[in-house]
Amino acid sequence: MVKRLALLGAGRIGKVHAQAIATHPRAKLVAVADANNEAAQALAAATECKILSIDEILNSDQIDAVIICTPTNTHANLIERFTAKGIPVFCEKPIDLDLERAKSCADRVTNNQTPVMLGFNRRFDPHFKAVHDAIKAGKIGAIEMITITSRDPGAPPPEYIKVSGGIFRDMTIHDFDMARFLLGEEISTVTAQASVLVDPQIGELGDYDSASIILTTKTGRHCIISNSRRATYGYDQRIEVHGSLGSISAENQRPVSIEIANQTGYTRPPLHDFFMTRYLDAYAAEIATFIDCLEQGSTPSPSITDGVAALTLAEAALLSVKEGRTIKVGEIL
Amino acid sequence: MVKRLALLGAGRIGKVHAQAIATHPRAKLVAVADANNEAAQALAAATECKILSIDEILNSDQIDAVIICTPTNTHANLIERFTAKGIPVFCEKPIDLDLERAKSCADRVTNNQTPVMLGFNRRFDPHFKAVHDAIKAGKIGAIEMITITSRDPGAPPPEYIKVSGGIFRDMTIHDFDMARFLLGEEISTVTAQASVLVDPQIGELGDYDSASIILTTKTGRHCIISNSRRATYGYDQRIEVHGSLGSISAENQRPVSIEIANQTGYTRPPLHDFFMTRYLDAYAAEIATFIDCLEQGSTPSPSITDGVAALTLAEAALLSVKEGRTIKVGEIL
Amino acid sequence: MVKRLALLGAGRIGKVHAQAIATHPRAKLVAVADANNEAAQALAAATECKILSIDEILNSDQIDAVIICTPTNTHANLIERFTAKGIPVFCEKPIDLDLERAKSCADRVTNNQTPVMLGFNRRFDPHFKAVHDAIKAGKIGAIEMITITSRDPGAPPPEYIKVSGGIFRDMTIHDFDMARFLLGEEISTVTAQASVLVDPQIGELGDYDSASIILTTKTGRHCIISNSRRATYGYDQRIEVHGSLGSISAENQRPVSIEIANQTGYTRPPLHDFFMTRYLDAYAAEIATFIDCLEQGSTPSPSITDGVAALTLAEAALLSVKEGRTIKVGEIL
Amino acid sequence: MVKRLALLGAGRIGKVHAQAIATHPRAKLVAVADANNEAAQALAAATECKILSIDEILNSDQIDAVIICTPTNTHANLIERFTAKGIPVFCEKPIDLDLERAKSCADRVTNNQTPVMLGFNRRFDPHFKAVHDAIKAGKIGAIEMITITSRDPGAPPPEYIKVSGGIFRDMTIHDFDMARFLLGEEISTVTAQASVLVDPQIGELGDYDSASIILTTKTGRHCIISNSRRATYGYDQRIEVHGSLGSISAENQRPVSIEIANQTGYTRPPLHDFFMTRYLDAYAAEIATFIDCLEQGSTPSPSITDGVAALTLAEAALLSVKEGRTIKVGEIL
Repeated sequence: MVKRLALLGAGRIGKVHAQAIATHPRAKLVAVADANNEAAQALAAATECKILSIDEILNSDQIDAVIICTPTNTHANLIERFTAKGIPVFCEKPIDLDLERAKSCADRVTNNQTPVMLGFNRRFDPHFKAVHDAIKAGKIGAIEMITITSRDPGAPPPEYIKVSGGIFRDMTIHDFDMARFLLGEEISTVTAQASVLVDPQIGELGDYDSASIILTTKTGRHCIISNSRRATYGYDQRIEVHGSLGSISAENQRPVSIEIANQTGYTRPPLHDFFMTRYLDAYAAEIATFIDCLEQGSTPSPSITDGVAALTLAEAALLSVKEGRTIKVGEIL
Repeated sequence: MVKRLALLGAGRIGKVHAQAIATHPRAKLVAVADANNEAAQALAAATECKILSIDEILNSDQIDAVIICTPTNTHANLIERFTAKGIPVFCEKPIDLDLERAKSCADRVTNNQTPVMLGFNRRFDPHFKAVHDAIKAGKIGAIEMITITSRDPGAPPPEYIKVSGGIFRDMTIHDFDMARFLLGEEISTVTAQASVLVDPQIGELGDYDSASIILTTKTGRHCIISNSRRATYGYDQRIEVHGSLGSISAENQRPVSIEIANQTGYTRPPLHDFFMTRYLDAYAAEIATFIDCLEQGSTPSPSITDGVAALTLAEAALLSVKEGRTIKVGEIL
Repeated sequence: MVKRLALLGAGRIGKVHAQAIATHPRAKLVAVADANNEAAQALAAATECKILSIDEILNSDQIDAVIICTPTNTHANLIERFTAKGIPVFCEKPIDLDLERAKSCADRVTNNQTPVMLGFNRRFDPHFKAVHDAIKAGKIGAIEMITITSRDPGAPPPEYIKVSGGIFRDMTIHDFDMARFLLGEEISTVTAQASVLVDPQIGELGDYDSASIILTTKTGRHCIISNSRRATYGYDQRIEVHGSLGSISAENQRPVSIEIANQTGYTRPPLHDFFMTRYLDAYAAEIATFIDCLEQGSTPSPSITDGVAALTLAEAALLSVKEGRTIKVGEIL
Repeated sequence: MVKRLALLGAGRIGKVHAQAIATHPRAKLVAVADANNEAAQALAAATECKILSIDEILNSDQIDAVIICTPTNTHANLIERFTAKGIPVFCEKPIDLDLERAKSCADRVTNNQTPVMLGFNRRFDPHFKAVHDAIKAGKIGAIEMITITSRDPGAPPPEYIKVSGGIFRDMTIHDFDMARFLLGEEISTVTAQASVLVDPQIGELGDYDSASIILTTKTGRHCIISNSRRATYGYDQRIEVHGSLGSISAENQRPVSIEIANQTGYTRPPLHDFFMTRYLDAYAAEIATFIDCLEQGSTPSPSITDGVAALTLAEAALLSVKEGRTIKVGEIL
């Protein structure tokens, strides 16, 4: 039986998920809801699905699960409403910008006993997954030090920054989740530095555009995260894990692997321009995992608890920058 | 309007095309025909299409075009029958193992004035296409010397070799087409050497498993092709073009881009295991181009004439090996 | 005129410098001194120089400059004695493990007005120098974030650890100098984490074997340093500088650039096994620079002041680990 | 005892060898001879050796061996004169442009029973040597197909072309020797194509600037050589060997290993600009091997016979181009 999905939010990331659903052999997008009627119509036309209101989707018996891609401040409410009805939810990160709200939502989800999967797409990237699997297979022995380099191609506009929750909750949150995914051990301390080097407007809004973070675990493992809101050469997404027996790394990806050699040297093209192309395979694998969970009745991962954990680290990083000290994660919980 | 396609032949390459059709937004596989009923049923079930006989497909008014993936010795007849009915054809290479038969088929297609596209999938590989486009854009100046390295992961079984037409018609034919695609000038001479180094059985069948070919054009450009039926490290598919202003190359592709460093060194995984995964994107782009031609009523390329040209070079290569001399292409025509 | 050099200390690093001197066209090693007679004899035999006592060297009028490669705790005194005599000094890092002692030595050197060059060899590595020069030439715009990865192939024995001054003064000191060399702006804060992950003996001696450090400058630039005392794949020495217009990186070096492809993948050999081979060119260029300064009477760089600055950062890093907070460099000065 | 060497010829390659001798711990350049007095004086000054006439060198009892770097047309005579006196010779390739003359010289050398080493420097390149050693160690199983890419940065002036003996005897001769060095089996056929694509002047002089050659051995192994007199990106020197168990390759070399990433992509610097820097290590290792042979009284390799063999292949290639057919090496001998 094909799983019938409804999409809440027809924006940039909504379209990415709609595309992933379209290529899945056992999933079908049957409805889309968006306050912006034009966006809803465009997506409905492209995918041949119906336009419904959120309430109509909530009350429909023709829908097996929802994909939430609405603005962040609606996530927690929507998760609660749909899980209360027993409708499985896939929700984009973050749960909420407020950690307390995210936690109360997670508690409600636990009560509702309905599956919720969080959109940490990078766990499903084939290259990063191969890193994860090689670690699990013991290829590099015990993990000691992880380096995550994560740089956006360009800074978002002030309007986006204003509602983003800041660099740690908006951007680093993916790296916090990746660190947790790879380390195989909970993070115990967060130490961060942040600057405004790319765009002074970001600083005027109280946010940062460049950040360096050191995470440590109880057994002393380190993870370094390097973030920037601008990389002229494309979407810079690399991971390197150093272990007792060796190191493993996942290189950057580019649309085509060619190289031109001439008087100025050997030049390969820039990287993917952003997440819509860089993580195309990851989004498809993520949706496929969600569909698998629906089919098998298994618990999806990453879960809403993973969402709370990543948000906690973001909170700790922000506090670390403000107070100029290492934050114990227990201080935040 | 979605283009309704029928697939003739549900074997290995038939499945590849069925998958490409499944992910195309404006194409739909509506029927499959295969003498092997089990193969037909499996593909029909997977793609939710009907099983029809070739005659039923020929006479249906519900079919916009056919994809021919049947054994080689049926290609020319099927091309002629379908184009006689005005039904556009996409046909796997080669047209026929016999050059005369291929030419007579091409003549008939010209008379029938119905579009025929030949399955030289590599032209649609995004990396090779980027090489082609960069050349056209003048990035390396005038082309001087091309090197094509093309090695299969492993030798096919004797049963395949027997009906394959030999390494030049079966395997090098793709490289001959790539040489023509990139050189932008017709090939005037063919000089070849061939050996049995991989599997003595191949030699017993009168074929070769290792070949080196030099092509030249009228203006003196060279193209070297290096073929082997075995590469332990995967499907080795590389192109390098040397020009007056620089060189351009397309590197090998692997499923995941990771690297493990340990006491034995730095190791990246083997390449794709064969064409089904290596050229996944190419097959999708190839079918998309065919659909575009159907929609726009434009002439598809590579055409049946390209198929005849590549076959002519294969014939010349064989003669060169046998006679130990450079063959002028005019000798073959 | 060939510059006549005397070498104090015929140990591991002493031999490296002796080799660099041997290949310099305008320098000659004329004397060696070492408390260990065997070491002195071996080096004297290999380089055809005399064995003298330190006092004899100090009082000789046949010596143009000295290279100090003795144990760390003798550096400051030797620097002071030779500069007091007006004999130019090249001294291995660090000046002293005690920051106060290093500073008083630097003050004395200033008074003596005799050239002293500090052995921060990495500044002279052709690859890192090319990074430095490209930055100066504006190739990546304004520097924003630097990442220095520096891992030894294996942990030194406890005897070495005991007298090393700890990982920050012994190992990271090179990276602190490199950060200063590249940033082009003084460092204002140091934040560090350190662990014992490689060898528990190191922990028992009160030292660490794994460290992550974030440096910041007044304008908000970041530099991350990642250190480990063990890398199974060789001597891991990489630098990456992210700027407003792009990034520049210097890759790891290996003795031979070959790659073997087989069923297990594509494997390149391990890296250089340690600094003696990795920085062979750097040591030669370093000595050449020292000779140039002697010939031209110019002030050598890196200077003893650079040595004090790097030692100050090491001190700050240690304090940061101990107090779990960001240290302002001004606190240390 | 230090070996005392005399250098005949103070031109470009003479200087390269003088430098290699200067860095050898047990060799010393004691004399130089050159018809061009200025060149002789410059080299003598730089290396602190005497200027002697060839006859003076021939009759000196202070000279252990000679390095012949004079114009090609003097090589055979000089080899004969020095070996007749029992003075070991290192001679630059080729022995002579005329195969018969080269052979008669080789015969004379055999009679004289004095060591002669031919200057096929690439055998001593650490990267190519590592390829050779890995093959010998069985890392890729049985050799099947070799690809040698060898491109000069730019075409030499007409004056050079005129006396060069043509591309096969002047340039490809190195690749012929490399093929023999790696194949471990004598070459039985030569098939070549050659064009004028770089510089019409070269064609006017009856020579070619672009060549593709296929060599085969009795057991059917292939070696492809691709030559061009121009590569805008530097001195292009690559080798790839395909075997039954895998492939091995030696990559191009550049002065510094850095990479700059920006909006136009990822760029590494051009390659070495020519043999003087690319093969610096090879020249040093070559001279060191010659010195070793002198010290141990062992027979140097590559020998004058290797020089004759490579020249024979050059002759065969030329004949192949002229006659448009595969040449059996036995036809030339």
